[in-house]
Amino acid sequence: MEKTVAVLHGDGIGKEVMHSALKVLRSIGRRFDHTFKVKTGLIGGVAIDEVGDPLPRETIELCEKCDAILLGAVGGPKWDQNPSHLRPEKGLLAIRKHFELFANLRPVKAVPGMVEASPLKEHLVRQVDMMIVRELTGGLYFGEPKRKTDNDAVDTLTYTRKEIERIVEKAFGLARIRKGKVTSVDKANVLESSKLWREVVEEKKVKYPDVELEHILVDAAAMKLITQPSSFDVVVTENLFGDILSDEASVITGSLGMLPSASIRSDGFGLYEPVHGSAPDIAGLNIANPSAAILSVAMMLKYSFGMETEAVAVEEAVYSVYKDGYCTNDVKKDGYRVLTTTEFTEKVMEELEREH
Amino acid sequence: MEKTVAVLHGDGIGKEVMHSALKVLRSIGRRFDHTFKVKTGLIGGVAIDEVGDPLPRETIELCEKCDAILLGAVGGPKWDQNPSHLRPEKGLLAIRKHFELFANLRPVKAVPGMVEASPLKEHLVRQVDMMIVRELTGGLYFGEPKRKTDNDAVDTLTYTRKEIERIVEKAFGLARIRKGKVTSVDKANVLESSKLWREVVEEKKVKYPDVELEHILVDAAAMKLITQPSSFDVVVTENLFGDILSDEASVITGSLGMLPSASIRSDGFGLYEPVHGSAPDIAGLNIANPSAAILSVAMMLKYSFGMETEAVAVEEAVYSVYKDGYCTNDVKKDGYRVLTTTEFTEKVMEELEREH
Ligand SMILES: CC(C)[C@H](C(=O)O)[C@@H](O)C(=O)O
Ligand SMILES: CC(C)[C@H](C(=O)O)[C@@H](O)C(=O)O
Repeated sequence: MEKTVAVLHGDGIGKEVMHSALKVLRSIGRRFDHTFKVKTGLIGGVAIDEVGDPLPRETIELCEKCDAILLGAVGGPKWDQNPSHLRPEKGLLAIRKHFELFANLRPVKAVPGMVEASPLKEHLVRQVDMMIVRELTGGLYFGEPKRKTDNDAVDTLTYTRKEIERIVEKAFGLARIRKGKVTSVDKANVLESSKLWREVVEEKKVKYPDVELEHILVDAAAMKLITQPSSFDVVVTENLFGDILSDEASVITGSLGMLPSASIRSDGFGLYEPVHGSAPDIAGLNIANPSAAILSVAMMLKYSFGMETEAVAVEEAVYSVYKDGYCTNDVKKDGYRVLTTTEFTEKVMEELEREH
Repeated sequence: MEKTVAVLHGDGIGKEVMHSALKVLRSIGRRFDHTFKVKTGLIGGVAIDEVGDPLPRETIELCEKCDAILLGAVGGPKWDQNPSHLRPEKGLLAIRKHFELFANLRPVKAVPGMVEASPLKEHLVRQVDMMIVRELTGGLYFGEPKRKTDNDAVDTLTYTRKEIERIVEKAFGLARIRKGKVTSVDKANVLESSKLWREVVEEKKVKYPDVELEHILVDAAAMKLITQPSSFDVVVTENLFGDILSDEASVITGSLGMLPSASIRSDGFGLYEPVHGSAPDIAGLNIANPSAAILSVAMMLKYSFGMETEAVAVEEAVYSVYKDGYCTNDVKKDGYRVLTTTEFTEKVMEELEREH
């Protein structure tokens, strides 16, 4: 197959980890006989610096011509005091909205050998393997009216039935090919939008008799992610709850530097990026963990290109490197050898060749 | 002093733990020569069953004649399918709003000897001692418009400057008599209400040069509560963020059954209740942990009655019982003797006498 990928490095360590990700992508291309073309564009802080816009028109046009987007990371203290339309995150929000990337998939999985790095007791996290499905283009992020005076401020949490339906369908579909369970998170005892949410979930459930469904209030979910994290399979929720819970979940297995994410549209087009940020403090030092960026490539192969085997090859290569006793600086561990970004990437490539 | 306390047992284990709390209150009365009068009223599920209203008029009138309110717990599966105006939680929301109990104080403290019960690694939680200050009468809980049709739904997140000012003042005031640090949690990179929130926090800070201030985004806060829980002192945030984060924090030290809460008004009037729920599965078995209800009495003594010494006496008595090797069923521990609700309460009273 031939696919064109928009590559947006962004800020901080974004450049380094994308470099690793692209090496792996090319390696997959060679091995499975695909052609991956790459077009690079600007987003975030660098885009503000170079053209005065966190998501320049040219970047949008470039992405429109591609089959998927790979993103490094955006943000940094340099732009923290900027007015809000000139902040790196705005680029991220705008690209999600422009391409209607309504489904944010955030897998959280205990990496064999690495659970010691977890802040939680090992027995609680060893079996963790969940997929948080966060609605990404609705709710308080984009609802109108949205305004602020000196004396008050308003944000609006709004959802249409359609918006809820498509994300809930996604969650049920994923549960079916995973462990068969959906946990829907809302605040139905307080919010009208959550009541509609729960109604839609109940309706959709009828089409998935084979999938187990549980409803849980967001406050209870925040507790259960800590006390029983391995009880979850697919977790589906609205935008802001998803923001909070997926970040909470991301530290549970002690593997934040290894977590990828996908933000996809109905037709499979999507944006893939590490969960971690731009880590300006270690940018340019060649010590960043490239696992999350590389695993984002795996998600792209799977969800946008339908290349299941290729995706699994990438995942297994990354996990093997850890299993062989290598790690990066962020997850240092007794008896493990700490590699640089480049070295770690080389090891992943070697694994890919070896599997072959 | 003479004080009158409104006692609302509520549902499930509410009755049992309030019974314990009142015994301790009376014991404090004897020891420090105060007269505590008690008036009981209905709230929650029992109120729905008996008079068809989760917060009957008579209860409001009764509370208006008192100096503070002690509440057990509300809710249970029995009322879960009720229409929303006939649900136990509505009683709780209504009483908060009616009495303008805008400041919800939720201390989270590692109980000596009990941190083993934590899902987190012990070294992370041993030093935890934070106070979450949650705004309780604004935001998405009460904002208008709030509506739902078959096709869409709307909730409104709104804050006035005044509402933010008073809760932020409270937080700074508390930090000054605690460890001198305020962490303000918002989502200022997305929400207008959070931008106003952050502005007000910055303004108020000027009056508290001795207090250290940090701003943190709600998603990052959800992570940091797990990775560095002992880095927090006072955490201040809006209603829904506070709901989620305070519940998340409540499981961190492994002592959910021991956590009290206060919901107070500007003049010191307040409602005091355990953080735990009504636990219908163990109601009537005399095995519930009464610590949270008893520690809620301590908070009432301190915040509504200005009885600092009395409050400390109660706290120390509860902690001593644990230190002496006793516990209840919810926090069973090797080498500890598991007591019934009644027995545990007796031990607390003995400690109170002994201290004397
Ligand atoms: C940067 C920010 C606007 C963004 C969000 O809140 O969605 C981020 O936290 C994320 O989760 O991708
Ligand atoms: C019962 C519910 C409405 C309530 C809330 O969300 O405030 C509860 O979760 C709490 O935190 O006291």
